[in-house]
Amino acid sequence: MEVFIEPIGRLINEFSKLPGVGKKTAQRYAYKIIGMTDAEAKEFADAVIYCKQRVKYCKVCGNFTEEETCGICKTRQPVSICVVKEPKDVIAMEKLHEFKGVYHVLHGVISPMDGIGPNDIRIKELLARINGGVQEVIMATNPDVEGEATAMYIAKLLKPLGVNVTRLAHGIPVGGELEYTDEVTLSRAFTERKSI
Amino acid sequence: MEVFIEPIGRLINEFSKLPGVGKKTAQRYAYKIIGMTDAEAKEFADAVIYCKQRVKYCKVCGNFTEEETCGICKTRQPVSICVVKEPKDVIAMEKLHEFKGVYHVLHGVISPMDGIGPNDIRIKELLARINGGVQEVIMATNPDVEGEATAMYIAKLLKPLGVNVTRLAHGIPVGGELEYTDEVTLSRAFTERKSI
Repeated sequence: MEVFIEPIGRLINEFSKLPGVGKKTAQRYAYKIIGMTDAEAKEFADAVIYCKQRVKYCKVCGNFTEEETCGICKTRQPVSICVVKEPKDVIAMEKLHEFKGVYHVLHGVISPMDGIGPNDIRIKELLARINGGVQEVIMATNPDVEGEATAMYIAKLLKPLGVNVTRLAHGIPVGGELEYTDEVTLSRAFTERKSI
Repeated sequence: MEVFIEPIGRLINEFSKLPGVGKKTAQRYAYKIIGMTDAEAKEFADAVIYCKQRVKYCKVCGNFTEEETCGICKTRQPVSICVVKEPKDVIAMEKLHEFKGVYHVLHGVISPMDGIGPNDIRIKELLARINGGVQEVIMATNPDVEGEATAMYIAKLLKPLGVNVTRLAHGIPVGGELEYTDEVTLSRAFTERKSI
């Protein structure tokens, strides 16, 4: 790195902190910044600070928001709650324009390997939201080991409260090919086959 | 983009300006920033501003520098001058630790298609640097059409000044395979074969 003068080296180092960015890519990004006008570079830096300062987590659901509660919690009835791992999963679901309920962001999943237990994620907050008005809780954690375990754990806590708990369906991705579908997914798709 | 709240949308937009970064990657970067501490995000933004403010171009060679002239021009004798397209090419050459001369950065290459003529790049500045002390000018522009044309153009201007002009060798990359070498490169490697 000593071939770079200090300000460039420092910027490359910062860019390297972004996910999936190595030294080579960070270099390209740094050159791009140097090639920008002063105003453009300032706008870039300002957007970082502004985003970091403005974005908070919704007091109710844990989603990204600029205010106390997010736009979704403010405008929708909590008849069904979709439970996700991270705020970005809310965005993925919202892009569907199909789900009209509210969300609950766990901010993590139970993962004993990483020392994350049920008390480290927002499960208590979810239980506190369950009342007579909530008809369904949709577990939309990722279909990996931790996501499944977390969904099962929460389902077990919710059932005694008389709430209907569902899970996103597993199966072959639309447009996918049988040949390239992994065995676990294919097995799930077979077990959960539906009459047509 | 409307699914994102404004500060996130704005940051995604800024990250999308980086080379090779699409919306999806920009999103990941933005989430990373949001997940940082305030201090980390500030450090990131500061590095952008600091780099943009501090990095100038060397008055002599056009390389990146924090001062009037760069560290290379300050400490080395201009006995041989290596001519490159961009400051990043200086870094690529310096990594070799083989060349002990100075550089001249053109800040572009002649490209009529893009409306870039000989007067739009730092050719005049190169000619002004040629004096009795300069023994060799190494043309190290990229081996593409514009790079070759620029090298030839400059060589033609330099020869009457009695300076030795050389060009980086073309050939099969070390570790490459004949089968996968493009025809132009293989043809050059054949034409310029050397006795061993």
